[in-house]
Amino acid sequence: MGPGPSDVSPRVLAAMARPTIGHLDPEFIRMMDEVKGMLKKLFKTENELTLPVSAPGSAGMEACFVNLVEPGDKVIVCQNGVFGGRMKENVERFGGECILIQDEWGTPVDVEKVKAAFAENDNVKALAFVHAETSTGVRSDAKSLCQIAHDNGALAIVDAVTSLGGIDVDVDGWGIDAIYSGTQKCLSCPPGISPVSFSDKAVEAVKNRKTAVPSWFLDKNLVMGYWGGSGKRAYHHTAPVNSLYALHEALVMMEEEGLENAWARHQKLHNALRAGLEAMGIGFLVNEESRLPQLNSVLIPEGVDDAAVRTALLQNYNLEIGAGLGNLAGKVWRIGLMGTACTQRNVMLCLDALENTLAAMNAPIKTGVAAQAAAAVLAE
Amino acid sequence: MGPGPSDVSPRVLAAMARPTIGHLDPEFIRMMDEVKGMLKKLFKTENELTLPVSAPGSAGMEACFVNLVEPGDKVIVCQNGVFGGRMKENVERFGGECILIQDEWGTPVDVEKVKAAFAENDNVKALAFVHAETSTGVRSDAKSLCQIAHDNGALAIVDAVTSLGGIDVDVDGWGIDAIYSGTQKCLSCPPGISPVSFSDKAVEAVKNRKTAVPSWFLDKNLVMGYWGGSGKRAYHHTAPVNSLYALHEALVMMEEEGLENAWARHQKLHNALRAGLEAMGIGFLVNEESRLPQLNSVLIPEGVDDAAVRTALLQNYNLEIGAGLGNLAGKVWRIGLMGTACTQRNVMLCLDALENTLAAMNAPIKTGVAAQAAAAVLAE
Repeated sequence: MGPGPSDVSPRVLAAMARPTIGHLDPEFIRMMDEVKGMLKKLFKTENELTLPVSAPGSAGMEACFVNLVEPGDKVIVCQNGVFGGRMKENVERFGGECILIQDEWGTPVDVEKVKAAFAENDNVKALAFVHAETSTGVRSDAKSLCQIAHDNGALAIVDAVTSLGGIDVDVDGWGIDAIYSGTQKCLSCPPGISPVSFSDKAVEAVKNRKTAVPSWFLDKNLVMGYWGGSGKRAYHHTAPVNSLYALHEALVMMEEEGLENAWARHQKLHNALRAGLEAMGIGFLVNEESRLPQLNSVLIPEGVDDAAVRTALLQNYNLEIGAGLGNLAGKVWRIGLMGTACTQRNVMLCLDALENTLAAMNAPIKTGVAAQAAAAVLAE
Repeated sequence: MGPGPSDVSPRVLAAMARPTIGHLDPEFIRMMDEVKGMLKKLFKTENELTLPVSAPGSAGMEACFVNLVEPGDKVIVCQNGVFGGRMKENVERFGGECILIQDEWGTPVDVEKVKAAFAENDNVKALAFVHAETSTGVRSDAKSLCQIAHDNGALAIVDAVTSLGGIDVDVDGWGIDAIYSGTQKCLSCPPGISPVSFSDKAVEAVKNRKTAVPSWFLDKNLVMGYWGGSGKRAYHHTAPVNSLYALHEALVMMEEEGLENAWARHQKLHNALRAGLEAMGIGFLVNEESRLPQLNSVLIPEGVDDAAVRTALLQNYNLEIGAGLGNLAGKVWRIGLMGTACTQRNVMLCLDALENTLAAMNAPIKTGVAAQAAAAVLAE
């Protein structure tokens, strides 16, 4: 129940252990087509360039920026946590000019600041922001932010690592031009693969580059020779065959549950967790309207030793919760409710474990009330 | 029995299916230390910067070039197959000046041409070559080539994707400065991870760069915060936890067998395969002294339909062999004997399957002699 990787279903683990076949085997290519089709549904897009990058989410981020940012390109980057900062690093490493908009960690991206930044800067090529900040548990208003980008003729680049599968991500509906995610959050697949999708406009931008993409591995022009819809599969790199078995199975499970049902499950179990935590007297970092159900940044009670609690949970309950990052280190815990780890059993375990552990340390919490509060929500 | 991915042992597949834990979990970090230690033994190096890149071999290649090549740097690249060409692409995409030495596909890198290139060019930063060309089955003389690089004050960058674990690779003994491999060849691990190692001289070169590494994901300065020996593990990206379980198990199996024993097994089974093929009248592309035991490029008999044979082997025997690449398409098959797929059973199956399939097509081969010829070698 940390910020990811989330627990992986035995079904997905079993799929991952199937015998390795060739990355050009006809059966494998058939599976690749199924993965592409399911990813399109998950991203809610018709984008032909929708595929899993053969590396973790950070490489998915890099795939978006290295293909779309050329030397001198202006990119507005919104930073309200760790991952916005990483976007800035990407823009600058590829020679782009980063116009940085900063919001306090724990708050969403301020739409008005973004409008102002576009008003002050001409010829902005792209707006980049994090939909669901894993470092803080904040959801930003992706739809409005994409609208502002389009109103100003810019591409919208979106980090959906923690949002995809946990809350609505509507690539075509919101007009996202380049998006990347990870497998190890709400898809509950082992880490190592990054689903990405590029709009036709983004594909055009890649094709019209003046300079070669400064990466061979992530060059979408090349990757599409292997993953594209042309029928012919040209070897680019050796695909991580078993990791794609796992992703395929996780996507099948997502289809079985239904995407909207998965979102509703995340929301309901978040509500239960929240009721239990609040009954104990533990509050949230993020305002209610911007809270992610799948990642709960909760305030560490006064005087409590952060690391001692996390170590006790891990040793006594085999339960991982995440530490705060950056300025939030020691101030918050990050409790994940992601994918197959988002269950009633985990919510109750976490509440009991926290209550017992904190009570044993004489922390200022109310005891004996959390479980009932959560159970009441679950019974609704 | 193609050019990789090779068959994966059930032990490694079972390891891969272990429950996913956090990439900062103390138990996982303990396993990372073991992986690093075993990789050092496998590479025969004391290099502190020895670690598995969280992506396939192509990304390992990119990790070497993106860290070591700065705009304007001169790099001599030896091309005698597909992968030398990819090295050239890497050098150029990172702004380097590529001095290309070409040798015919199927022959090793010509040491004299490399000496001449150094004589003709000043201030060469690095020499890059492929130790074992997967596209042709050729072994080049890595030791001599590294010596030439050092004699001229240049770094030696080596592709060991197909060599590592199948033939001797001696990083410290030969003075290799940057090396990358893959898990899916002679280590018989699923594809998706690339072991790399950088010498202290290479690390110095990265630290003394004038420009930032044009990749965030592959920047060795950052990756070392997570994989380095400092004790503290700073989060960089989410490691592909299950893929590293698999690599760990494959490395344990390699230690159980012993590295020298693994090389001897590859050589002996190559000898058996060769005896059988030659008895049938099928010859090799590569001269005997430069042949890789783990990758056999064999000449397709006159008048035989390449694809029809490979399809028949796959459908009737569930046996994959590789097609030729580039100019060698239709002219050779690439028969892999890699890692756990390098077994007596596979050699005999392959010979029988080829003999029956070719005989049914009235190909000009001798029948009824291959199995005995191979068995005689195996009995030695």
